[in-house]
Amino acid sequence: MGLDTPDAKPHDRLAAMLADDMGQVNTLIRARMASKHAPRIPEVTAHLVEAGGKRLRPMLTLAAARICGYDGPFHIHLAATVEFIHTATLLHDDVVDESRQRRGRPTANLLWDNKSSVLVGDYLFARSFQLMTEPGDLRVLEILSNAAATIAEGEVLQLTAAQDLRTDDSIYLQVVRGKTAALFSAATEVGGVIARAEESQVQALYAYGDALGIAFQIADDLLDYQGVSSATGKNVGDDFRERKLTLPVIKAVAAADATERAFWQRTIEKGRQEDGDLDHALALLKKHGALEATRDEALLWAGRAKESMATLPPSDMRDVLIDLADFVVSRLY
Amino acid sequence: MGLDTPDAKPHDRLAAMLADDMGQVNTLIRARMASKHAPRIPEVTAHLVEAGGKRLRPMLTLAAARICGYDGPFHIHLAATVEFIHTATLLHDDVVDESRQRRGRPTANLLWDNKSSVLVGDYLFARSFQLMTEPGDLRVLEILSNAAATIAEGEVLQLTAAQDLRTDDSIYLQVVRGKTAALFSAATEVGGVIARAEESQVQALYAYGDALGIAFQIADDLLDYQGVSSATGKNVGDDFRERKLTLPVIKAVAAADATERAFWQRTIEKGRQEDGDLDHALALLKKHGALEATRDEALLWAGRAKESMATLPPSDMRDVLIDLADFVVSRLY
Repeated sequence: MGLDTPDAKPHDRLAAMLADDMGQVNTLIRARMASKHAPRIPEVTAHLVEAGGKRLRPMLTLAAARICGYDGPFHIHLAATVEFIHTATLLHDDVVDESRQRRGRPTANLLWDNKSSVLVGDYLFARSFQLMTEPGDLRVLEILSNAAATIAEGEVLQLTAAQDLRTDDSIYLQVVRGKTAALFSAATEVGGVIARAEESQVQALYAYGDALGIAFQIADDLLDYQGVSSATGKNVGDDFRERKLTLPVIKAVAAADATERAFWQRTIEKGRQEDGDLDHALALLKKHGALEATRDEALLWAGRAKESMATLPPSDMRDVLIDLADFVVSRLY
Repeated sequence: MGLDTPDAKPHDRLAAMLADDMGQVNTLIRARMASKHAPRIPEVTAHLVEAGGKRLRPMLTLAAARICGYDGPFHIHLAATVEFIHTATLLHDDVVDESRQRRGRPTANLLWDNKSSVLVGDYLFARSFQLMTEPGDLRVLEILSNAAATIAEGEVLQLTAAQDLRTDDSIYLQVVRGKTAALFSAATEVGGVIARAEESQVQALYAYGDALGIAFQIADDLLDYQGVSSATGKNVGDDFRERKLTLPVIKAVAAADATERAFWQRTIEKGRQEDGDLDHALALLKKHGALEATRDEALLWAGRAKESMATLPPSDMRDVLIDLADFVVSRLY
């Protein structure tokens, strides 16, 4: 079965449609992750970049530019920029979370050390800023530098909010917009900007990326409680064990009685977890319908993503992006 | 005695001459280190920004712009950009070096945690990129994003080079250009660029910043072996204990016989240090005239800085920058 048939996953169809462009993006990424003086840099970067990530974010930039009829060279630079920002973020996230595995391989902080991950991440951030200046478009610079600030802000907010039971839906949304949706929306928006698309189209691309990113992260957080390891590369309950307050638990906390509240305080706020706590947590999520409510929210955002994309000029590429929004939440059934 | 008299330290005279501009820079820094959503960000940043650093780098940008006759508003943004990059770098350096003290106060990684230092540093990097786009000058963006990449590259190079006895003068110079001189030279260069100075003046400003930064770092590395704690805030031999191969030791290693080489291998490469090793290291530095040779090199770079600055149009500000180059190495007598 070909990758460009309707039965293939939207992500794979997108990859097939954008194969030429992505080839150029990968060449540019490889060229710019080099370092004349410090061989440690390409070693660490290659470990992550070539681990077979899906390259979803750069494909969003390429697709957005194509949908708006762009035929210049700079969507390649912007797609590589987006992937560099993403990679830098992953390197720093793994230090912050003390992660040991990423994409099924040992993390860079484990294989080398935290120092290398911090500094190579900084190098990639700087390289991304060099890349984004190359199209010479100030609006693009504004969008991408704002996204970088929003990402870092969301991560810092998560540091304090994740173990605080006062964290509600709206703070959660702010964290998710920062850590995930900001780069999705910047990726799609700059595709439209570089194509000199009409303002309404640029806004629709932004709204698509924002909603897709939110749906994607909510789905990820839900799968942590209901998924199977093979779908996510995570074990059920990782977020619980790491005391990360995500939407399912936020919903269960909102509906908790005094005893349940004490349970969440002990396990999430104080981090004193015992055998059987995860099972009890899952029972509480079920009791309050927290998983269904979380799934409804993911579906709502996926629907918004589709609506926004539907306002853009019809094309095969547009329809694949619409399917992608469905696909992100299809994992939840 | 007034700060604008010739007897005052050049740095203090510069601060007095630039007091109005620096007031605006500080206001801008305070405004931009805020975060609507994550109060941890201004807490961490204020701890460092308000600890009384000398603000040397932003003053270099302001002075360079003024020397070239600039009377617009954007040197303020660029000075704040430079200070943000510097502050972000310090936050990450302290994580990488596991430092406990900075400017006489506990480091942010000690007061909060490594996570906060990494992520708040990322936020400040992103903020610096937002700021640097505001003048709308693509050459400025290129210079500052190149500097950010060179800084990170120098730091990564240092990770591997600092404990490797094969590190020679030229690799040391590369590290120093990265970790220190790149931001000095970018700071002065963008001052000239924003002022639309003649190309030869921009080049002279770059060369001044580059040479000043190198002189500054060599002096710092020398003082680690011959200084007193009050002048540097460091104890004699900190770099030795932390196994950082700096110019004095590089020169002693180059002149070492087999026994001495074995000593450096044990203490720096393998890190097996014993009581009395620092005294022996100091004796070897003395035996080979390594401290004098290092001082000569610092003086050489200070001289280059002065020569470059002397090509710029005469003004009080220019003369203070010339004095500053002398001052940086005056600590060495």
